[in-house]
Amino acid sequence: MIEANPERVLRDLHCLRGIGAFRTGVHRPTYSAEDMRTRHWLADRLAALGHAAEIDGIGNVLGRAPAKGRIVLGGSHLETQNEAGWLDGALGVVFALEAARAVAEAGGPGGVDVIAFADEEGHFGSFLGSRSAFGAVDEATLDAATDRTAGTPLRQALAAAGLAGRPRLRLDPARYAGFLEAHIEQGGSLEKDGLRLGIVTGIVGARTFRIACAGQQNHAGTTRMADRRDAGVSLRAVAARLEAGAAALAGPLTVWTIGMMRLDPGAQSVVPGFAEMLFQFRDTDARILAAIEAMVRETVAGADAAGPCRVTLHGPSHASEPAAMDPALMAALEAAAEARAPGMHVRMPSGAGHDAQIAAGHMPAAMLFVPSIGGISHHWSEDTAEADIALGAQVYVDAVARVLAAG
Amino acid sequence: MIEANPERVLRDLHCLRGIGAFRTGVHRPTYSAEDMRTRHWLADRLAALGHAAEIDGIGNVLGRAPAKGRIVLGGSHLETQNEAGWLDGALGVVFALEAARAVAEAGGPGGVDVIAFADEEGHFGSFLGSRSAFGAVDEATLDAATDRTAGTPLRQALAAAGLAGRPRLRLDPARYAGFLEAHIEQGGSLEKDGLRLGIVTGIVGARTFRIACAGQQNHAGTTRMADRRDAGVSLRAVAARLEAGAAALAGPLTVWTIGMMRLDPGAQSVVPGFAEMLFQFRDTDARILAAIEAMVRETVAGADAAGPCRVTLHGPSHASEPAAMDPALMAALEAAAEARAPGMHVRMPSGAGHDAQIAAGHMPAAMLFVPSIGGISHHWSEDTAEADIALGAQVYVDAVARVLAAG
Repeated sequence: MIEANPERVLRDLHCLRGIGAFRTGVHRPTYSAEDMRTRHWLADRLAALGHAAEIDGIGNVLGRAPAKGRIVLGGSHLETQNEAGWLDGALGVVFALEAARAVAEAGGPGGVDVIAFADEEGHFGSFLGSRSAFGAVDEATLDAATDRTAGTPLRQALAAAGLAGRPRLRLDPARYAGFLEAHIEQGGSLEKDGLRLGIVTGIVGARTFRIACAGQQNHAGTTRMADRRDAGVSLRAVAARLEAGAAALAGPLTVWTIGMMRLDPGAQSVVPGFAEMLFQFRDTDARILAAIEAMVRETVAGADAAGPCRVTLHGPSHASEPAAMDPALMAALEAAAEARAPGMHVRMPSGAGHDAQIAAGHMPAAMLFVPSIGGISHHWSEDTAEADIALGAQVYVDAVARVLAAG
Repeated sequence: MIEANPERVLRDLHCLRGIGAFRTGVHRPTYSAEDMRTRHWLADRLAALGHAAEIDGIGNVLGRAPAKGRIVLGGSHLETQNEAGWLDGALGVVFALEAARAVAEAGGPGGVDVIAFADEEGHFGSFLGSRSAFGAVDEATLDAATDRTAGTPLRQALAAAGLAGRPRLRLDPARYAGFLEAHIEQGGSLEKDGLRLGIVTGIVGARTFRIACAGQQNHAGTTRMADRRDAGVSLRAVAARLEAGAAALAGPLTVWTIGMMRLDPGAQSVVPGFAEMLFQFRDTDARILAAIEAMVRETVAGADAAGPCRVTLHGPSHASEPAAMDPALMAALEAAAEARAPGMHVRMPSGAGHDAQIAAGHMPAAMLFVPSIGGISHHWSEDTAEADIALGAQVYVDAVARVLAAG
């Protein structure tokens, strides 16, 4: 057995926590100075380990192991949501770094390439770094991309980060036995069930649509109810139909969310002339996604035809397909989990998106989850018990070793 | 008969239109430089007419007629909503100015005091100017008031406008035969019915409540539907109940509006942890207002008790009582309207609030409406046909003359 060094793992995680610290979490938007410091930190550590380390033209950090034999690709991402948690992304990168070190220290067999994909958190796009590494992002996409908050052009941000002009790396799937990504669960299932490890069976696909209603803005005192075309009233009726429709079509793991709704101009004495909302749904079952999408299109068209407001569908602004994890890699993770924590693991889907879903289109991929305290993520208070981090690191190293030894 | 001078009325209105012009409308928030220019413009014209003119410590402009005998108080307001129309407020001030001039030129009988109440549009409060003029605003209220958009303290705005330290005027109801306010309708009823003048029977009372839902913010991918406390879902359910409840209790003229609704943090992939909306309702019938308010309180309490979110009621942030117009003044307006435009007038309630509702608590008060093209107001495209402005000015002057002659 190859032993992980839990003190080293925690030391690295706390080191990253100190870069862009925000309360007990971190604030490291993609290509910020703090984000770039973590990328250089990782590249330095990989180089010190004897890996061929590089930071590419989109910020992906890759360290190629100098080993012979089978190679596993491990990693996750380093940037964070705004004012977010210290483990989302960083945990998977440090676990992979630890696996690379432990395997190297043990003299193999094989080796571990470590990657930190850029912008998994989507400040500038959707999985820009991992999609770029598999050849799915063209230059025109980069030309058009902007920061979702400030609107800064991606090209400008890359130049400010010192990345302009660098080539973008391409991963060669033939080099790898597979991609293994560890991550916090970002939900409360493991904690609620008293379990410590999740073996991800598949990553949900998602669709986000924007639905807009255009009515007639009017004075809320002088416009009779019968004369109104209130965009908010119409939009809420559509929302109710979408939620009921999704519930009727849902499987046990389907989720749907109206995360944003706003009325324009949004004043107490004005009948809203315009209203919009975002409707998102996720499932690991592509047929359910398709059925809900059809229901959305039908509902919006029906509301538009019925009047009195114009109701339009826009998007999907975000669309990803469900990704199944590789059975052999899942078996390696499960065997490792059972050996270190018998009965404390479960197979489960991932409701959140991850770079592993991009990798799964090109090579075997799998994911290991550790519990999130209180199910909290994308918030600075996000946390995981140290014992769970240590166990997760060991099981991850064990699984990597099993895959490397299987060749 | 005392004849109004329609050219003079239109010239004055266009002069005011040029102060703070925005497209075809105007932008004159209370105490802005443009707003203050209109107040000085009015005070200068009143002084030129021989009136004792003053601008008081809250920006009210009053010109006292040097006449003997009965005195009518006429006017409205000069500031506007942001990027709003040229006639809302200004029309009533100019009609009163024209009445003062026409009556003075005719040698009476009696005279017309002209007032422009400050901040009818509520940038800093609710009817601050008219309430102040009737003694209903204390210094502590002024200390606490801030601009609803920028948050600028009222005291700071008054100082910048050169009004700090000036005394606030008090109107003496005993001086007046009544208050007559002309205004655009701000609705489409007159136009739709092919009429040219409205005799206001009463001004609606209004209540605005804020309803807040506190749930649990969570990741929209990883949080199962059964585990959610989605503040937006809860708030929309409350909205549906409030709208159905108001419809069940409504009279023929009741209106209710959700003008603002927002979800927090308002992102596609986040289950909203907080949501809020504004619910406003208006009627001329105080019993209906009371019944709807009771329904609102009961609905919110019931939703809070039912869970899963905390639902709370705040306010009313705005509450005004219905105000009946004075029968004798209404009769004077109606007789004047019938004499100049037989069959082209109607008795109607005002769905919007006006300074006349404050005045009505202290003296006889009445209002005359002219049509709004397309029912549009609080928007720069607000307009009224010139012929309707001219007719309205003449009927207003006639009604004032009838009241002055009645003594």
